[in-house]
Amino acid sequence: MQVNTLLKPTWIIPIVPEGVVLTKHVIAIADGKIAAIVPESEASQFEAKEVVELPGEIVMPGFVNLHSHAAMNLLRGVGPDLSLMDWLQKKVWPLEGRLMSPEFVYEGSRLAGEEMVQSGVTCTNDHYFFPVDAAAGLRESGMKCAVSAFLIGFPSAWAKTDDEYLKKAGEVIEHFRGDPMVHVTVSPHAPYTVSDDAMKKLAALSERNNLPIHIHVQETESEVSNSLKQYGMRPIERLKKLGIVNERLISVHSVHLSDSDIDTLAKAGSSVCHCPSSNLKLASGFAPVAKIMDAGINLGIGTDGVASNDKLDMLGETRLAALLAKAVAKDPTAAPVHKMLYAATMGGAKALGWDREIGSLEAGKSADLFSCLLEEITSIPVLEPAAQLLYSAGRESITHVWINGQLVVKKQQKAESFRGMSRTKALDIAHTWQNKC
Amino acid sequence: MQVNTLLKPTWIIPIVPEGVVLTKHVIAIADGKIAAIVPESEASQFEAKEVVELPGEIVMPGFVNLHSHAAMNLLRGVGPDLSLMDWLQKKVWPLEGRLMSPEFVYEGSRLAGEEMVQSGVTCTNDHYFFPVDAAAGLRESGMKCAVSAFLIGFPSAWAKTDDEYLKKAGEVIEHFRGDPMVHVTVSPHAPYTVSDDAMKKLAALSERNNLPIHIHVQETESEVSNSLKQYGMRPIERLKKLGIVNERLISVHSVHLSDSDIDTLAKAGSSVCHCPSSNLKLASGFAPVAKIMDAGINLGIGTDGVASNDKLDMLGETRLAALLAKAVAKDPTAAPVHKMLYAATMGGAKALGWDREIGSLEAGKSADLFSCLLEEITSIPVLEPAAQLLYSAGRESITHVWINGQLVVKKQQKAESFRGMSRTKALDIAHTWQNKC
Repeated sequence: MQVNTLLKPTWIIPIVPEGVVLTKHVIAIADGKIAAIVPESEASQFEAKEVVELPGEIVMPGFVNLHSHAAMNLLRGVGPDLSLMDWLQKKVWPLEGRLMSPEFVYEGSRLAGEEMVQSGVTCTNDHYFFPVDAAAGLRESGMKCAVSAFLIGFPSAWAKTDDEYLKKAGEVIEHFRGDPMVHVTVSPHAPYTVSDDAMKKLAALSERNNLPIHIHVQETESEVSNSLKQYGMRPIERLKKLGIVNERLISVHSVHLSDSDIDTLAKAGSSVCHCPSSNLKLASGFAPVAKIMDAGINLGIGTDGVASNDKLDMLGETRLAALLAKAVAKDPTAAPVHKMLYAATMGGAKALGWDREIGSLEAGKSADLFSCLLEEITSIPVLEPAAQLLYSAGRESITHVWINGQLVVKKQQKAESFRGMSRTKALDIAHTWQNKC
Repeated sequence: MQVNTLLKPTWIIPIVPEGVVLTKHVIAIADGKIAAIVPESEASQFEAKEVVELPGEIVMPGFVNLHSHAAMNLLRGVGPDLSLMDWLQKKVWPLEGRLMSPEFVYEGSRLAGEEMVQSGVTCTNDHYFFPVDAAAGLRESGMKCAVSAFLIGFPSAWAKTDDEYLKKAGEVIEHFRGDPMVHVTVSPHAPYTVSDDAMKKLAALSERNNLPIHIHVQETESEVSNSLKQYGMRPIERLKKLGIVNERLISVHSVHLSDSDIDTLAKAGSSVCHCPSSNLKLASGFAPVAKIMDAGINLGIGTDGVASNDKLDMLGETRLAALLAKAVAKDPTAAPVHKMLYAATMGGAKALGWDREIGSLEAGKSADLFSCLLEEITSIPVLEPAAQLLYSAGRESITHVWINGQLVVKKQQKAESFRGMSRTKALDIAHTWQNKC
């Protein structure tokens, strides 16, 4: 069989089937898709235009970032160490108010797209104004994305009234209809910034077009207590009443979930997007991730925007999610490695309704994947490849990223150590002792 | 004035004075020490053998890792997602029991030293068996270290009885007396593994030699409750009674501190070493870092060993410490950037009693420092250099590391983006918008 590319890494994590690390296997890529993953012994069936040897490397599907504000890459790091309200009112909102424009969104999204592909992210679910410009910026890096049919109950440079937001939301949906690289989500900003009436119309828009609903929900304690005061119910109860809580819902942040909220989301078949760095930095709190997973809710991971994170590093974010979940659950066996890698890939793909095409390395799916060098000083010896990808490696160890079978990034880190040892010597030591373990 | 090296970075964080980011300054290095830090306009007074231009880079003192088990680099990642007791009893202890030897410690410490210097760590406080071999391994990378005059109440390959441990502890102290690169700490393993009698003898050894005491304290809830059962008091109360709680104490982990424990440590002038990744991964809990700092206790940061972390990444560890402290305190203004960078450098140096020589960039101190590239896709635009070093950059962005003025590491990351933009283009965009912010 003629194929474009044959990848020969040391390890492969296909994500589906779950919990598997393949060794001595090859990945064949043809026409932008995974043609097959077969044992090395069967590789001779493929006639490949290009063979990529990846010794000491591990290949897995590209990350699906389930929550970003790409344009905010132009505001990276503004207002560190401020309270949420000072941060928003004194820094972020004035800057956004002054700078917001199609050009701002396009340029910020270009930077974010570039940062993400270099970090192994092959698809992001973006939430922002000027979604056509966001998509244009993100697409320059080659990545896939979902952008927002957005609504917030305040005037902005993008729209002035609920009606105008809704009209533009419809236009955005039409603009990208059938686009294989750009999907659309219906994106009310949050329960506390969108009226009941607008929320119902967005629920209908989502249902009519079968599109995910992408919304910040129960990020802070005060959001929940204010909703109880104003509406006599928790935000998730209100959203349920308004037709938002269903199998299309992506409930972002969702730090402050009661057991009954978790039950509601689980029964509805909704997804939760966890953004751990942002939740810590803004002191929002600790999401009950192990409980969410135990309830059978589909979990994805998001970076949030770089004004509150401040890096679009899905590998780092997934590591943090795993570590935090253990401490919050007081159980080191919680949030095991393979479940967290699943959340960072298939979890996001499922939430976006995109899981027939992306999120795992299965024959027929898009060849969106990356290779990460484990056999280097920062992660040797490799006793547990999947765990060490998650816990020891960093995004910098990612050497190749492919989207639709096209190489979009190739990186190489050159370290010269003047006093210490060469990489070869370090590998020698690691291999010697690895064999004794 | 004749100097060896003149560094010309875009930004400098000297750590002392606190809270300062210098621009348009140069660092002059002579005879392994910081000769001066002066404005660019005064740089002509120096005749330098070598001038290092560092555009877009930020220079700060090397990290002082206040708690490592370097030899465990040979056991990286063993037993992920296990309970603490399964992890110790089924994985770590059997492997250590089988492999422990001078050679194991030397080789593991070589790998750890190399990983650390490449991560900007210029001094580590190690806690392990065979300390002479640990020091030999660590020294190969050029780094400074403190090693252990170690005691645990169990027989090991290093010693069989308390008396033998104590005898060897004394020998280790003599071995390194006066060594400018290797210091020694008196290191009982933990309150629950060392008897009252041995603890008192170690307290005396520390006092006689004026050496820090390096000990795991109140890492888990059960350690505290078991001590209450066995001794009728909390570990810190018991240690106080035994003469261990004083200005030389480095109380490591210290996750489960009551307000009265914090008061005891503050009054004694003790230091606390926080190891956030390890505490999360083993589900030990959340240390009250903001309270510790607010009480005026000297705080340092440690990576712990790579079997429980699994990376010797002080920059990442300090980022995590800052983020966690905010969420634990429910206050995003807690653990501000400069205080955390201080903890990761001067905090460690002070705890080790080494702060007259290392920990900050001040004239007369050792030239132990690193340079980190901020002007790259993962951290532009640079609106807040110190915050973005901590929150956006990663250890991979560290380009140069010097110890005693000698260049020990030089790194370069080469990223080719095939669809996206060049670094030059990305910087253009960032600079354009930065000027509008």
